[in-house]
Amino acid sequence: MRIMKASEFGLNREVEYGTPEQNRTVERILDNVRAEGDAAVLRYTEQFDKVKLNASQLRVTEEEIQAAYDRVEPKFIEALRRAAANIRSFHEKQKRSTWMDVQPDGTIIGQLFRPLRRVGLYVPGGKAAYPSSVLMNAIPAQVAGVPEIVMVTPASTGGKEGIDPYILVAAAEAGIHEMYRVGGAQAVAALAYGTDTIAPVDKIVGPGNIYVALAKRYVYGVVDIDSIAGPSEILVLADDSADPAYIAADLLSQAEHDEMASSILVTTSKTLAAAVQTEVARQLETLPRKAIAEQSIRERGAILLADNEAEAVATSNRLAPEHLELLVYEPFGWLGRIENAGAIFVGPYSTEPVGDYFAGPNHILPTNGTARFSSPLNVDDFVKKSSVIHYSKEALLRDGEDIMTLAKHEGLEAHARAVEIRLVKEGKRP
Amino acid sequence: MRIMKASEFGLNREVEYGTPEQNRTVERILDNVRAEGDAAVLRYTEQFDKVKLNASQLRVTEEEIQAAYDRVEPKFIEALRRAAANIRSFHEKQKRSTWMDVQPDGTIIGQLFRPLRRVGLYVPGGKAAYPSSVLMNAIPAQVAGVPEIVMVTPASTGGKEGIDPYILVAAAEAGIHEMYRVGGAQAVAALAYGTDTIAPVDKIVGPGNIYVALAKRYVYGVVDIDSIAGPSEILVLADDSADPAYIAADLLSQAEHDEMASSILVTTSKTLAAAVQTEVARQLETLPRKAIAEQSIRERGAILLADNEAEAVATSNRLAPEHLELLVYEPFGWLGRIENAGAIFVGPYSTEPVGDYFAGPNHILPTNGTARFSSPLNVDDFVKKSSVIHYSKEALLRDGEDIMTLAKHEGLEAHARAVEIRLVKEGKRP
Repeated sequence: MRIMKASEFGLNREVEYGTPEQNRTVERILDNVRAEGDAAVLRYTEQFDKVKLNASQLRVTEEEIQAAYDRVEPKFIEALRRAAANIRSFHEKQKRSTWMDVQPDGTIIGQLFRPLRRVGLYVPGGKAAYPSSVLMNAIPAQVAGVPEIVMVTPASTGGKEGIDPYILVAAAEAGIHEMYRVGGAQAVAALAYGTDTIAPVDKIVGPGNIYVALAKRYVYGVVDIDSIAGPSEILVLADDSADPAYIAADLLSQAEHDEMASSILVTTSKTLAAAVQTEVARQLETLPRKAIAEQSIRERGAILLADNEAEAVATSNRLAPEHLELLVYEPFGWLGRIENAGAIFVGPYSTEPVGDYFAGPNHILPTNGTARFSSPLNVDDFVKKSSVIHYSKEALLRDGEDIMTLAKHEGLEAHARAVEIRLVKEGKRP
Repeated sequence: MRIMKASEFGLNREVEYGTPEQNRTVERILDNVRAEGDAAVLRYTEQFDKVKLNASQLRVTEEEIQAAYDRVEPKFIEALRRAAANIRSFHEKQKRSTWMDVQPDGTIIGQLFRPLRRVGLYVPGGKAAYPSSVLMNAIPAQVAGVPEIVMVTPASTGGKEGIDPYILVAAAEAGIHEMYRVGGAQAVAALAYGTDTIAPVDKIVGPGNIYVALAKRYVYGVVDIDSIAGPSEILVLADDSADPAYIAADLLSQAEHDEMASSILVTTSKTLAAAVQTEVARQLETLPRKAIAEQSIRERGAILLADNEAEAVATSNRLAPEHLELLVYEPFGWLGRIENAGAIFVGPYSTEPVGDYFAGPNHILPTNGTARFSSPLNVDDFVKKSSVIHYSKEALLRDGEDIMTLAKHEGLEAHARAVEIRLVKEGKRP
């Protein structure tokens, strides 16, 4: 793992737009599902997932969900339930209520909070089918009060027909009962436009491959989408008080995700830098996903030496990591200086997997530097606000002339007249 | 204005992606500004706005802002200030605070709220340069605590060199002091990527023409953007208690915006429907923007007859209007049934312009049916949240095995080991 000066390091950020060919493929799939509905969905499912279905087979049955429970070991289900309870409890604390400001002159203004009506959750097939992500996507929607949460996932897993039973169990534990075996851009299209079998949704969340990501980008506007996730990142801010073995283990837990993942240590301590370098090399040797982690560490990993604490913090803020660990002597003292980070893990026992799986905060976090302006998935993402405006006669008579002045300046005479007609009727204007 | 059955009416919603040629133009402008910075910005400003500048002239000077105040009548400034005070007061009520849940076992989890650091506000030139929109975009950012708010607007207005003094005054009143004379896709590029003169921002808000909208869509991910606004819409829900002249005036205030604006009345009363039809025709005659309003009413307007109150409300929820007026006998009794609307205007004195200019709630609202899932511009749009996770030794020793179970199932052994190494060190595992 290379050691370099913090000031000389930058991450190369690119937004993924896909190749022109991938874009054309996605456009074609979207257009065809929009025009033909179920027929196109079934055709693409046969073509891409190698599973031949009719429309009545798209929906996962209650029996399949029950059968999945029999295939998953009780120890897993218990751990999953404890995680789900923590996630639910954390997100419950985010809920907000409609408020109104009721003024003596009869003016009432406020914000009305309402859950979205129907949300679609995309779950990828194959190795990227993570039960933990099902909980992390579904529970905030459920806590927000979304009455209909629907899951879509490919009809085959790793080339074999059928859905991973762990995914079905996680979805059921998260309270999802409407699930369809459809994946790829065709699933996104079905959720956005609706088919005879799948009613359209208001928002689509969840990760997927490049085709799913492009399809979500296209349908944004017809429905809402979550952010497009980039590769995963960790940045560890550490001083001599930190255990190099802990740091190495935490960096590697990020590096094993994929070759594009970034694992960065920022420190003012050359001693620590050297010790972590040694530890990373040592721990890497016995990892099952060694090849992936090694490439990630080599190409995207770095140990950055900062001249002082201020530079260390500035480097972290500049890189705006998805995950930030504070492995320093008095970590809560550093919190106030952190500007940009998806999730901040404070102190030696808060290793990233604590948040990935269990503590309660969401593991769907802003990547690719977007922590500068975006946030972990949360209850607000499944709630919309409507403004409420009530003016009394008294209030309108008082403010009417000001409103007309502003409207007339903008050349919007009909706006002014909508006020004037009321002022005239009330005898305030001739 | 046509009268038809509510069940037979649908709005044709299309997301605007621009022509292939417009897309190529925008891509070229973005690439060139990214590569060349100020030089490209100045070249496009000469090409599109017919104004030849050097880099040091891009920034609007303090003297120009002062000179603008001399060109704007005091009555306008006073009305603007009263509007700004209301907008500020309403948005202040939306502010939220960092919270932490501190548990007896040493676990601390919470959400850290932070304003974005730097936000760019696009203000179009020409007739669409609305001082009210400057307030509506800038004040929520300011209330959120964004330390740097920067405005960009074309170097010429309606073919004439210079910026509308009303816009400069509105920006100054909203607390903006950093302003640049640059518009179009080149302004979006400068804000997203930065140039020698214009430092890059974290988010771009504000309306613009198709090139601006496409440019914002492209740079989304590099920076955050607000939603892409569609044509404006009003839906009036009314019964026999409503004054047909008020309804007509309110419908027309929407219709005068542009030919694509939709003005819809939904009612169960045939008497009211006929009276509004007559009133619209009558009031239309004397409007300065009659041609625009007439085309809008003819092509996009409708009076919809519902069989009963339930169908009237369902129609409104289905259309998810940007603006909704409740002109019914007991309007607050209807509020609970409204699911989808950007802003809800309650009762006869709450005509839409009250909210467009003055009451305090934002006039930047979800259009094109997106009130199903999105919200008026608000303070949350300028704040990012970071999760905070602190586990004590006690908490990790208790939950460690569960976390390892979940990680191992997902094939993420290094995640499990990051926990295990700590459990081993604390003697909880061999």
